[in-house]
Amino acid sequence: MIVVSSIADLQRARSQLRAPLGLVPTMGFLHAGHLSLVQRAREQCSSVVVSIFVNPAQFGQNEDLAAYPRDLERDLELLAKEGVEVVWTPSVADMYPSGYQTWIEVGPLAAPLEGAHRPGHFKGVTTVVAKLFNAVEPQRAYFGQKDAQQALVVRRMVRDLDFPIDIVICPTVREKDGLAMSSRNAYLDQDERAAATVLYRALAAAREAFEDGTTDAQSLRRIAMGILENEPLADPKYVSVTNPETLEAISGTVVHGLVLMAVGIGRTRLIDNVILGD
Amino acid sequence: MIVVSSIADLQRARSQLRAPLGLVPTMGFLHAGHLSLVQRAREQCSSVVVSIFVNPAQFGQNEDLAAYPRDLERDLELLAKEGVEVVWTPSVADMYPSGYQTWIEVGPLAAPLEGAHRPGHFKGVTTVVAKLFNAVEPQRAYFGQKDAQQALVVRRMVRDLDFPIDIVICPTVREKDGLAMSSRNAYLDQDERAAATVLYRALAAAREAFEDGTTDAQSLRRIAMGILENEPLADPKYVSVTNPETLEAISGTVVHGLVLMAVGIGRTRLIDNVILGD
Repeated sequence: MIVVSSIADLQRARSQLRAPLGLVPTMGFLHAGHLSLVQRAREQCSSVVVSIFVNPAQFGQNEDLAAYPRDLERDLELLAKEGVEVVWTPSVADMYPSGYQTWIEVGPLAAPLEGAHRPGHFKGVTTVVAKLFNAVEPQRAYFGQKDAQQALVVRRMVRDLDFPIDIVICPTVREKDGLAMSSRNAYLDQDERAAATVLYRALAAAREAFEDGTTDAQSLRRIAMGILENEPLADPKYVSVTNPETLEAISGTVVHGLVLMAVGIGRTRLIDNVILGD
Repeated sequence: MIVVSSIADLQRARSQLRAPLGLVPTMGFLHAGHLSLVQRAREQCSSVVVSIFVNPAQFGQNEDLAAYPRDLERDLELLAKEGVEVVWTPSVADMYPSGYQTWIEVGPLAAPLEGAHRPGHFKGVTTVVAKLFNAVEPQRAYFGQKDAQQALVVRRMVRDLDFPIDIVICPTVREKDGLAMSSRNAYLDQDERAAATVLYRALAAAREAFEDGTTDAQSLRRIAMGILENEPLADPKYVSVTNPETLEAISGTVVHGLVLMAVGIGRTRLIDNVILGD
């Protein structure tokens, strides 16, 4: 496994790799969710590149950029075990050198939910992902369903800008008690960790109600919200029942939907989602 | 020479071409300036793709999109003579299908001059150029110095977003009387055509004064503006003496500069520029 930092070194390493090439973009502090993306890439591609870059451009001013957990040594051990060919760990100066001034924005799809609560977040995501795509030139890139809106926004960008890349969305990986894997789970203390299962409990309740015949979007939203409100450590930021492609809120009957939520647990902000119908 | 319209057909044709591949993006109605780009690409590349697309996204609401001159048959004849491999003529629906919502913006470099006078213009340019780059995947792309700010903005985007593409800027091609070649020259009637030489006369006077030792930016600007103001059919939009890399206006002494201007001649808006120093 080759570990490179500069774009020039990356491109030298990349030129030796066999196509099809799969890219797994990460912010490091890897967990089983990331590794499931790497494994899928390993199955589908001849070569796998994993990028590790905590992208300042996608953090708001009052967010957790400085605190974001990092453990490069452990990440590299995990990736070596998965048989990854190249790990790319650019610096902030590699990615945003002095004079940097180009930004990519996706419109309506990036506006609600995370876009509304984290202004500028998706602009940072789409810009850095485009840079990763141009530097690595993969045939496929892997993203997790856990960040559902991110996956849709990236897929939209790829389609709109004609990137010759297939975006593969992999299922959310969960702890035994349902908590979606996230590097930010490391922030939780013991009580918060117990409370954090409330996201999945709320989503599972909505999905169960849907499967039992409750198809009204408002009712499903209220079921999820009711469970969140019962958890003293939880501070719900939003719960939304949306069209799974456009992320427009559904009013009335759900045939195929996506329930998304963001919840504060102490000082940690967690997101999760489930799909309703197929 | 293969002529394709859809992106799928383009990519099929592209897969048969030998690298290095050169792309010449145009809006059609080709003149000797475009052909000089094609010839340079022909010299430097094994294959040449020319795109012809009048990009609505780079025209303002009150600009000349509907009137923009077109003559595809003549364009194809000219390109066949140059030995071009592939001409790509996408439709607006190919480039901006329903639901399209992704835009690329360059910051300070795109703000003054054309950016200030044509709000949204460079956002349309950078977005469509990125799409052309992703669809064609050239190793080199060719732009004219005539659109000096466009060339700088595109080069900045390529650098910032890590496109693996060399941007080649070719000199302005002029008519015998100095008028810079432009598809928009076709709008000029006989009197306007005579008056349109005023841009080059003004630029040449500034350059001559610079070479004769007038290095104060304001003086050079006044020399050019004085000549424009002497032409009754000319309506100067801006004249600016700038740093040739950043496009920041120079105050004081010019060592290496760029004089840029936009001038209305009747209802036609023309731009031109000259470099001062080396």
